[in-house]
Amino acid sequence: MESPGTGCAGSALRGDCEPAVTCASVTATRCFWGWGYEGAGLSDHDEDNLVERVRHVVRVAPTPIAAPTPEEIRLAPSRLRPPTGLAPWCRVDDLDRAGHTYGKSFRDVVRALERRWDRPPDVVVRPPDEAGVAAVLDWAARVGAVVIPYGGGSSVVGGVEAPADDDRPVISLDTGELNQVLEVDRVSRAARIEGGVLGPSLEAQLRSYGVTLRHYPQSFEMSTLGGWIATRSAGHYATLHTRIDDVVESIRAVTPSGAWESRRVPSSGAGPSADRLWLGSEGILGVITSAWVRVQPRPQYRASGVARFATWRAGALAVRALAQSGLWPASCRLLDGREAALSGAGVGDAHLLLVGVESSDHPVDYEMARAREIIRDHGGQMSDDRVTGDANDTNDAAVRWRSSFLRAPYQRDVFVRHGLIVETFETAVTWDRFDGFVDGVLTTAEAALREVDAWPSLVTHRITHAYPDGAALYVTVLAPGHATGRLAQWDEVKGAVMAAVISGGGTVTHHHGVGRDHRRGYDDERPDLFAAQLAAAKRVVDPGAILNPGVLIDPATRRVR
Amino acid sequence: MESPGTGCAGSALRGDCEPAVTCASVTATRCFWGWGYEGAGLSDHDEDNLVERVRHVVRVAPTPIAAPTPEEIRLAPSRLRPPTGLAPWCRVDDLDRAGHTYGKSFRDVVRALERRWDRPPDVVVRPPDEAGVAAVLDWAARVGAVVIPYGGGSSVVGGVEAPADDDRPVISLDTGELNQVLEVDRVSRAARIEGGVLGPSLEAQLRSYGVTLRHYPQSFEMSTLGGWIATRSAGHYATLHTRIDDVVESIRAVTPSGAWESRRVPSSGAGPSADRLWLGSEGILGVITSAWVRVQPRPQYRASGVARFATWRAGALAVRALAQSGLWPASCRLLDGREAALSGAGVGDAHLLLVGVESSDHPVDYEMARAREIIRDHGGQMSDDRVTGDANDTNDAAVRWRSSFLRAPYQRDVFVRHGLIVETFETAVTWDRFDGFVDGVLTTAEAALREVDAWPSLVTHRITHAYPDGAALYVTVLAPGHATGRLAQWDEVKGAVMAAVISGGGTVTHHHGVGRDHRRGYDDERPDLFAAQLAAAKRVVDPGAILNPGVLIDPATRRVR
Repeated sequence: MESPGTGCAGSALRGDCEPAVTCASVTATRCFWGWGYEGAGLSDHDEDNLVERVRHVVRVAPTPIAAPTPEEIRLAPSRLRPPTGLAPWCRVDDLDRAGHTYGKSFRDVVRALERRWDRPPDVVVRPPDEAGVAAVLDWAARVGAVVIPYGGGSSVVGGVEAPADDDRPVISLDTGELNQVLEVDRVSRAARIEGGVLGPSLEAQLRSYGVTLRHYPQSFEMSTLGGWIATRSAGHYATLHTRIDDVVESIRAVTPSGAWESRRVPSSGAGPSADRLWLGSEGILGVITSAWVRVQPRPQYRASGVARFATWRAGALAVRALAQSGLWPASCRLLDGREAALSGAGVGDAHLLLVGVESSDHPVDYEMARAREIIRDHGGQMSDDRVTGDANDTNDAAVRWRSSFLRAPYQRDVFVRHGLIVETFETAVTWDRFDGFVDGVLTTAEAALREVDAWPSLVTHRITHAYPDGAALYVTVLAPGHATGRLAQWDEVKGAVMAAVISGGGTVTHHHGVGRDHRRGYDDERPDLFAAQLAAAKRVVDPGAILNPGVLIDPATRRVR
Repeated sequence: MESPGTGCAGSALRGDCEPAVTCASVTATRCFWGWGYEGAGLSDHDEDNLVERVRHVVRVAPTPIAAPTPEEIRLAPSRLRPPTGLAPWCRVDDLDRAGHTYGKSFRDVVRALERRWDRPPDVVVRPPDEAGVAAVLDWAARVGAVVIPYGGGSSVVGGVEAPADDDRPVISLDTGELNQVLEVDRVSRAARIEGGVLGPSLEAQLRSYGVTLRHYPQSFEMSTLGGWIATRSAGHYATLHTRIDDVVESIRAVTPSGAWESRRVPSSGAGPSADRLWLGSEGILGVITSAWVRVQPRPQYRASGVARFATWRAGALAVRALAQSGLWPASCRLLDGREAALSGAGVGDAHLLLVGVESSDHPVDYEMARAREIIRDHGGQMSDDRVTGDANDTNDAAVRWRSSFLRAPYQRDVFVRHGLIVETFETAVTWDRFDGFVDGVLTTAEAALREVDAWPSLVTHRITHAYPDGAALYVTVLAPGHATGRLAQWDEVKGAVMAAVISGGGTVTHHHGVGRDHRRGYDDERPDLFAAQLAAAKRVVDPGAILNPGVLIDPATRRVR
């Protein structure tokens, strides 16, 4: 990331929030300390420009921290010796172990920049198939090792790191070899896909069948189908089918107690949904090896536009009306003025609503016209619409926004190297609480940032997903950090905001997941009895408590709190 | 049901599949042996007409069985004596106990007509509030009694009857007193509603707030919100949000281990969905006392039409195309010719597709026009559309169909009294298997009916719900039964069809539930490890195994099969 990249991640966008899918080769070298692939980050020029854009608001360190090199990695020796049968899939070198020590949160990048890999996995193993996954779980159970399922490693909630309070050796089970689209059923519009396939490869493979999953979380480049299912990923669509949950037909997984597979049917009323136990399971039940998911033809008809709102509240009311209209826009994102400016989508003089509709079946002029009416009724000033029959979309503000959206993880790493605290909160809340909730969360965040001497800061926010009954709020913080102790500063802020989210009636996470970082809030959010039920369900498939201990629930706790 | 009713259930229909909601008073007397309210059944004249309509196809008993009278009920004495504090809510009289002995399946009505109430509940208790529910569960645990949660009692799968192989005394916990809409949040379009409210009362209460749940299962008149949640009821909408699952925001329940309540948020990615454990739980985890559910304004714009298809296959292809179009029609039901004739919607010379779109936000002419195109592209002949701005819909075939749909449970009881076997199968399967699956199920059903000497029969079928990846098939059987032994005949047929459904790749139930009657098929369908997980989750909230034992899972089974 030190050297100017070829700039692949920011290149041609095919349409609304849809990244280029063929750019990043899966054979490229993953960056071991930050986001993405080696060489795919910002060019020196872009990096300078980026830092320049925030320097007038936020104190930036005079000299950026140099990215660590592989030679700087110093790890404790591995405590595991893989059995002969598994050895070919196992890696115990420092580089691979360091690369699997953390996810990709601010906290993770800071620790890597500090050359700290306190609790690396003892082994990174990439089983070649489902039987290999089972063999790894057997081995782990035999030697009393912890297993951390690792998909794309893009967790920003401490979901793939070893528990600090557990002395067992650690195996990072990387599903990267389970990366094939196995079968496409064009009649039912569904595909059977392995759990370890990364977004770009998944879409590239589906493209040869003429279909798409159209699930584009911000982590798309570096996250997997199995990871999306395990974390209830929210993707492309801002309304209606926002979540991977909505397209899963059936799941196949391997647990320490054996294989688990649900029946593939379009819908069933036979007992509680078995799949829903895996959706959001965050690696504590087993390894998701494949799933049948609904796919679709590429959209042939699209229309989009950008509306300016003088007040955030007016924009939010428009979003609510759109979400309640039954038009189910594919895009419906409201950026506050600062977010618009930071992303380059605007100049900060207005809040921007990016709205788009799409269909593979019929022209969407009618839906777009009604969306325009709704927006105007709520005081929004629409730009000229773009109604296109092809996959290009050159609406400037929208394109700039999407480019920024996809570049954000790379940009985040630049900011971290320049000494900033840069993180996000995301949550969802019902509309009746929305206005006060947003005010409360923002006020709390700003007060906490002042409290820890991380001021002046840039705190921006947006609505990422909208429902008839509420919306998902996404807050980005860019704040000056202490040269040492940025993590402690952030802990304070995060704790304060998490408390505000919970007391305000929101969820601790709309789509980042719980992991280790959201445990406090999650424990306050979920019913106590449900936690006990989840622990009981885990014990059935993981009697040795080897899978991702401490994530979601405390496996040592047998009693209700 | 002997005397001519006032015909309430068949009266004015407000729109597509939407029954009159103010007709049946909740203070009317429930029929203790069959469907609905005393006096609300068919008139003598309608009954004669109905029987006449099938007599040329199916052998009808010369003399109908007389409905039982309360005086004929002979039950074993109650083995429970309610404690003083609970006594005011408890009933131990034979009439109430007989009325709570069964659900409302063919099997249930036959047993009642045979004056058999072999295992009635010892007590029927109607707690007045949530604390009362908790007190009943405490009492049951104390005295070692089984508790069967009872909502509207409309189960057709043996979901509310006592286990045959369990000698414990039985309490039928009727939630009928928990019947209030507690709160409406118009801003978020959601309502907090008690679990025991019946459909008509729920809609009548919501109407005063200007909103509707628009969830209309066929059992609407006699089923409750809590029952819909516990059985993953499928309702009004033929596409998109077909199931009560799709509108539940949060659930509040009482279990033997205490209260259970999920957080009310529009969407969350925090761990596996806690609510989804209750959706489909069929009374084995506790009593659903209230829920926040999404409501909506009444639709202002509607359009509907009926298309004729020369072949079933062409009609099914049209349904598939509609389900994959993104138009999300509210109605999309395909009746085979015989079903159309039986219901009076047609004369049997064509298969009928009933399609309708609706919106509370915008005119739906555009959607309807596109639906017409799709239907015509697939060879369907559309009737003149009805495009209405009000709530009336006089499209004849559609109205006749809906009237028949809602009258069906009353009509079923007439057929049962006339010696027929009259039952249904329902399932769902992906489109790639659909054609062969339908053939296989129908062939199996007809062969089994011949095998048990229930021939000639009328076997009709329809598509009730459609998804992008598959559809729900609903089969109705009208067959001549032996004067005694109809249940044994049906058991043979049911077993054969259940096996065909499972081997053909379908689900054992799209929306009737599992109960006791679908256990064999369900055991083959769900992952074994999931059954063990569900049993473990149950033990957390029901350590004494008092709740609906034998439904969904065998609570005595601690091991994976």
